[in-house]
Amino acid sequence: MITRSDLNQRLLDAEYAVRGPIVLRAQQLEEQGRKIIYCNIGNPQAVKQRPLSFPRQLLSLLEYPTLLEEPEAAALYPGDIISRARSILRKYPEGTGAYSQSVGIPFVREAVAQFIAKRDGILARKENIILTDGASKGVHAVIQALLKGENDGFMIPIPQYPLYSATLTLLGGEQIGYYLDEAEKWQLREDLLTEAHRAALSRGVHPVCIVVINPGNPTGGVLTNENIRMIIRFAKLHGLSILADEVYQENIYDPSAQFFSFARVMHEMKEHDISLFSVHSVSKGFFGECGHRGGYLECRNVPDDVMAQFVKLQSISLCSNLPGQFSTYAMVAPPEPGDESYPQYKMEKEEILGSLKRKAELLGNGINGIEGLSVQIPQGAMYAFVRLELPPEPGAMDTDRHHQREFDYCIALLEQTGICVVPGAGFGQPPGTLHFRTTFLPPEEEMAALVEKLREFHLQYTQTVQPVH
Amino acid sequence: MITRSDLNQRLLDAEYAVRGPIVLRAQQLEEQGRKIIYCNIGNPQAVKQRPLSFPRQLLSLLEYPTLLEEPEAAALYPGDIISRARSILRKYPEGTGAYSQSVGIPFVREAVAQFIAKRDGILARKENIILTDGASKGVHAVIQALLKGENDGFMIPIPQYPLYSATLTLLGGEQIGYYLDEAEKWQLREDLLTEAHRAALSRGVHPVCIVVINPGNPTGGVLTNENIRMIIRFAKLHGLSILADEVYQENIYDPSAQFFSFARVMHEMKEHDISLFSVHSVSKGFFGECGHRGGYLECRNVPDDVMAQFVKLQSISLCSNLPGQFSTYAMVAPPEPGDESYPQYKMEKEEILGSLKRKAELLGNGINGIEGLSVQIPQGAMYAFVRLELPPEPGAMDTDRHHQREFDYCIALLEQTGICVVPGAGFGQPPGTLHFRTTFLPPEEEMAALVEKLREFHLQYTQTVQPVH
Repeated sequence: MITRSDLNQRLLDAEYAVRGPIVLRAQQLEEQGRKIIYCNIGNPQAVKQRPLSFPRQLLSLLEYPTLLEEPEAAALYPGDIISRARSILRKYPEGTGAYSQSVGIPFVREAVAQFIAKRDGILARKENIILTDGASKGVHAVIQALLKGENDGFMIPIPQYPLYSATLTLLGGEQIGYYLDEAEKWQLREDLLTEAHRAALSRGVHPVCIVVINPGNPTGGVLTNENIRMIIRFAKLHGLSILADEVYQENIYDPSAQFFSFARVMHEMKEHDISLFSVHSVSKGFFGECGHRGGYLECRNVPDDVMAQFVKLQSISLCSNLPGQFSTYAMVAPPEPGDESYPQYKMEKEEILGSLKRKAELLGNGINGIEGLSVQIPQGAMYAFVRLELPPEPGAMDTDRHHQREFDYCIALLEQTGICVVPGAGFGQPPGTLHFRTTFLPPEEEMAALVEKLREFHLQYTQTVQPVH
Repeated sequence: MITRSDLNQRLLDAEYAVRGPIVLRAQQLEEQGRKIIYCNIGNPQAVKQRPLSFPRQLLSLLEYPTLLEEPEAAALYPGDIISRARSILRKYPEGTGAYSQSVGIPFVREAVAQFIAKRDGILARKENIILTDGASKGVHAVIQALLKGENDGFMIPIPQYPLYSATLTLLGGEQIGYYLDEAEKWQLREDLLTEAHRAALSRGVHPVCIVVINPGNPTGGVLTNENIRMIIRFAKLHGLSILADEVYQENIYDPSAQFFSFARVMHEMKEHDISLFSVHSVSKGFFGECGHRGGYLECRNVPDDVMAQFVKLQSISLCSNLPGQFSTYAMVAPPEPGDESYPQYKMEKEEILGSLKRKAELLGNGINGIEGLSVQIPQGAMYAFVRLELPPEPGAMDTDRHHQREFDYCIALLEQTGICVVPGAGFGQPPGTLHFRTTFLPPEEEMAALVEKLREFHLQYTQTVQPVH
């Protein structure tokens, strides 16, 4: 029988904090009957966000096309969605039941290309679009393809979404962390990028790509156009590809912030020589269809023979799931004004985004009213990365002790209040600082109570926590 | 901009014949208006197999639960399926829209465990079940987890399904090919296993696991109970884990053949010390739901701390797609006698399996009637691995020349008849032999014409093909 020591060391080393020990403990408590408020993961429909009607109606018809022949269906579905399902099945009679081309259904990839073209006012080609099982698989593909030698590394933000660190560990790539500027709404800083790059070279690591998450996870920051220009110049200077994680592009709450895709800014700069990989997903935005594992990877400025290798990589696992592909189609080609289903779609979309905006402010302002906690009010995405101050301990503290204090805080928060958050160490943070990541996804009517619970817990914890020598 | 030479060499080296150059050529021809008969891939619904009503009705309701509140729905769905959807959503209100636990929805994993227990008369635990995006992802996980050192290798059959060779190449594992015995209906032979194992050791390769595909892909062979016992004894003798690819377990056509799972045979042998990984999928069997990318991995005889690493690996890509998880539930918990939907389910199932059985015989007997082609009539699965004899060429022939002749034959077959098959080299074969793999999935009424086209092509090709010096 195999034992743990027979396993791949890279797997043993990989860590994925968003589903780590605190979440496992939360599941235990829930099985014992405790009410848990899951703020550990951006999973909107698990915390009662209702699905949009449009994609679900469409999927329901595509799963069971017999409905299209039944007169009763007309009473159950808007006319434009029935027509849309019919038109899809004329173009693509296999529906959800067959493997598609490895890279996904051609008309869906075409729709994705049009979505990008319309969003950014630029050209986009379906040949450069691969439909993926969520954005994670697109990220995995880019990392797998670009790691050539064992000293190759990806520049990743600190804090980052742990998909990046875990995948790099798993695939044997080096992490080259660069710090985000918490005081400046988590923008990137050229001097910190340069320093991280220099430090990598000096330890023999070869940076091949820079990962940028915009809007930010776990930070909730939204990068300015000028910040993105700086990053593009930096990538060009150092011959790096760019992996742009843009899955929160629809989640912008701060009226002074605006989403700029890397593709658009590169176009504005007339920059066509930097390979750009961008991922998007149906899991986030106002769709929140995490369970459908739909998404796409756009590869821009890559030669055809490189693209062919991405296609081959995709073919080894055959294709992404078809309901996910059709969900992606629904995301990029929603109802238009004049369609019967448009008013409802618009209302549902605005309700979700409006509520997220209010919750970002409720949570952010609430936390900033608690002494010892502080946060940049999230401008976008679904997360707040909360700075935590604990009473000083005597003597020097090493990183392990810092992590332990943060972990102890989060586990006590869970045990005492049922609020499940993720310690900052899972994302990375400047040495000596403490954080935790929380979503602001729980229902609006519960948000004030959540902040109040957090306040009471924090006060009591910091008064009773005993410094350890 | 990156170039091909910047890419991971393992990716460049990986090959996946089932979607290789011949298939790309077929897609080109199809775009030019040619009718292509896709026999390259086990993708039933792409060649007009109709989906079963039951899983589609269930998925349709789960995608749009509002239907459950509408009186019109009662006219459109069988009552037991409406009840089933309601009961699922009571147990699991998130439905298809949220990430599940990394390993999949608990009640679905419990249903899988019960399915295995009932099928084999053995114990099975949901804690050892991971729901995956098709079987491919389960295979990928096992290979990724068990490759510890760079000289570690997996024993894989020759011929094999190229998922195995491609994934091993991609992840840096060694392929240790063992020959199947074509003359004995593609059973495994102990002397050939021993020889392959010895040869691996002598080139410094460390075998960690043996892959067995039963029923066989591309062979269509079904292993006897005695053959499986021999394999288990062999694995025990050499300290190997077993990866059992059992996705075709429902596809048995030869009345003298029977499917025995490795789990069952190990239980019969009172063998509980060999780690066994078994994958299954909704893509094959009579479901043929390839597009839904549903499946499971059962890990048997693995310690809890090893299982925890598999769970962690799964968590890095969050979870498998939820419609796929519900498809898997539909596969393992179908309608029972007495349910309103049972008669239709039974009829559709028997129609599909009956037709596959007839097509296996039609194709097999047809091919055996063509001089220069021969095949073991498929006992199971969806494929025939056809032996091809071409007029001898003068002089010695190396492997490359053999592969070229095989490829030329298959491409000419495609160009002249529209029949798309995969050359044997993509699966592996004994040196000096030539093969191609074809499915027997095209509609029954087209099968006789397909065999006739093949006969005419073969005759003409072998008469005109010029030996090359």
